[in-house]
Amino acid sequence: MLEDQIAKRIHEISPFYVMELLQRAKQLEAQGKNIIHMEIGEPDFATPQPIIDAGIKHLQTGQVKYTAAAGLPELREKIADFYRQRYGVSVAKHRIFITPGASGALLLALGVSLNPGEELLMADPCYPCNSNFASLFAGKAKTIPVDAQTQYQITADLIQLHWTKNTRGALIASPSNPTGTLISSLDLQQAVHAVTELGGCFYSDEIYHGLVYGAQASTALEFSDNVFVINSFSKYFGMTGWRVGWLVVPDAYVEATEKLAQNIFIATSTLSQYAALAAFEPSTIDLLELRRHEFEQRRDFLYQRLLALGFDCPVKPEGAFYIYANCSKFTDDSFKFALDFLETEGVAITPGKDFGNYHAEQHIRFAYTTAIENLRIAMERLEKFIT
Amino acid sequence: MLEDQIAKRIHEISPFYVMELLQRAKQLEAQGKNIIHMEIGEPDFATPQPIIDAGIKHLQTGQVKYTAAAGLPELREKIADFYRQRYGVSVAKHRIFITPGASGALLLALGVSLNPGEELLMADPCYPCNSNFASLFAGKAKTIPVDAQTQYQITADLIQLHWTKNTRGALIASPSNPTGTLISSLDLQQAVHAVTELGGCFYSDEIYHGLVYGAQASTALEFSDNVFVINSFSKYFGMTGWRVGWLVVPDAYVEATEKLAQNIFIATSTLSQYAALAAFEPSTIDLLELRRHEFEQRRDFLYQRLLALGFDCPVKPEGAFYIYANCSKFTDDSFKFALDFLETEGVAITPGKDFGNYHAEQHIRFAYTTAIENLRIAMERLEKFIT
Repeated sequence: MLEDQIAKRIHEISPFYVMELLQRAKQLEAQGKNIIHMEIGEPDFATPQPIIDAGIKHLQTGQVKYTAAAGLPELREKIADFYRQRYGVSVAKHRIFITPGASGALLLALGVSLNPGEELLMADPCYPCNSNFASLFAGKAKTIPVDAQTQYQITADLIQLHWTKNTRGALIASPSNPTGTLISSLDLQQAVHAVTELGGCFYSDEIYHGLVYGAQASTALEFSDNVFVINSFSKYFGMTGWRVGWLVVPDAYVEATEKLAQNIFIATSTLSQYAALAAFEPSTIDLLELRRHEFEQRRDFLYQRLLALGFDCPVKPEGAFYIYANCSKFTDDSFKFALDFLETEGVAITPGKDFGNYHAEQHIRFAYTTAIENLRIAMERLEKFIT
Repeated sequence: MLEDQIAKRIHEISPFYVMELLQRAKQLEAQGKNIIHMEIGEPDFATPQPIIDAGIKHLQTGQVKYTAAAGLPELREKIADFYRQRYGVSVAKHRIFITPGASGALLLALGVSLNPGEELLMADPCYPCNSNFASLFAGKAKTIPVDAQTQYQITADLIQLHWTKNTRGALIASPSNPTGTLISSLDLQQAVHAVTELGGCFYSDEIYHGLVYGAQASTALEFSDNVFVINSFSKYFGMTGWRVGWLVVPDAYVEATEKLAQNIFIATSTLSQYAALAAFEPSTIDLLELRRHEFEQRRDFLYQRLLALGFDCPVKPEGAFYIYANCSKFTDDSFKFALDFLETEGVAITPGKDFGNYHAEQHIRFAYTTAIENLRIAMERLEKFIT
């Protein structure tokens, strides 16, 4: 059994360059060096106590059997309520599937809709796993270079321009990882309509919804029922390690999604589903809103400092917990910049090439998933590093 | 967006016929009718208390962040210890990946090794998701009809006979679902060697290991390091709803498996992994051994009763919690038989056609995942039904 027998799809999947940085960061930490982590796509806050308590309470019943493949009916109902309350949209409960994180949601969404050889349009830069999921099914991510002009989002015009007979659909992530930028409500609506008119599938990655500062994020469900919406309890709700998210599918895909979920997951973690029931409690939301406010303060601090240091961020990010900064004033090799910065100053950041090819060497992603005191020290170290 | 745009792979995935029975069973229960469930592939026992306690204890720390994609190092270590202690084999820890159930393990195993168009040999009858996972990756399950002659298992001879230039590997599940039969140690060894000589991949589904009565199950790892082994905490360890299992891969596939796991799962549920640490505690194993003994008594009871009623079970099942009985003395349409039995007597069983095509209409799977008192009543009802 030889290495060259590894399935071809694996070679299509790009590695995470940040892993090399992470490994080095661990070595440095083992040597006693203080490292500030600004590379991590995970909130530093613990899971809210009401969710933890709900988990403990459920565990005490001792009942941790399989749920239905589509998930706990009560949780699907609560998500439908959430759409009604937060966005004013009505989503039929049977279209909502509970999944093992947003990863599971994307796996299902593409599994039921993307054929081998078909293309999926998405922005460059974007979250790298999105294109890798297309490769998993022998599909192909067709990335569209985006910049400040379109808030780093693909638009109806770009979709129409890049659409070919092999295109199956388009994926928009708003707020975006790595740029933290949002698509406007109107642009989202037009993108949804463009894809619908082209007869394709629209995939809306809304996993950073909730983490939005001074703006409002629209769900694609406001504009059409014929969309796939990927969401998660990981980011806003602080449930990363629980691996629970959800997928909304068009009516025509409900049966196919259920069949696929039964086969590839059986079901999502029962305990995580029961705990997630507490995610929508007022006491949880109050806590999450405080955290959102803290993220906003970090964003403001970091954004101002980066600009002051000479980094270029032409669109002020309004969501998620990332700033995607142009570092071309200092380097034309952002990966080397990140490695050197870690080595000399002990701050870990993510190089642009983890998110695509377009001007990737001139960009760095800074995650503000650490306390403002740490961000302050990191910026002092950055100032020292570049001067 | 039309129904006929559903991805082709979905049409390759067979439905679960038992779902129709389940739905009818629920209707009957809603009408107040007593239903005995012998269709369920899930132990009726609750998760062992030491595992529940470990879960609660971990939750109280409030730390439910992502783990590494390959899983908690401590858990991988414990699994390596388990192989040493239970089977006397040494498995390098870095070859062990923690997965979201055995489903996640099979997804990874085939994801890193099966190319579109390639065939995977497996027994007919077998667990239906196995062939569906092949379809997911545009591969093809090539099922080999098996019967009592080979303990309902595929053998080295059968593998050699059915191997073509398009064959990528062979999958053996022992104890088997639905037949509960084991492959002998020698046959397993020969099958592993046959596949290795043919240059293919060997996949060993060992999820029912531990639930073996009066016999000994060998792991494929005893015979080669170049095998994929799928296992789970669901069945023997009583952790179905926790969604945690593991996969052992050949050394050459470690890097590819890690890359794929990072992309499609991020990680397995953190809490489930911490709880699973308690699965190997002596107090847990003591409890599990008592349960195993109870399963054995159920097996003995059910096996004798089915034979006495005129069902044919030419190989006494030695594992899992299933008896795959030939019902041709009573029907040539086991699905109709199951539906009628449910309707008139209120006992749910699984028709053979959920497990393949070979003599499927003449077979029924009885699961003994319910107390012996219920099995007794079910057999009384069965006697009434067939006479």
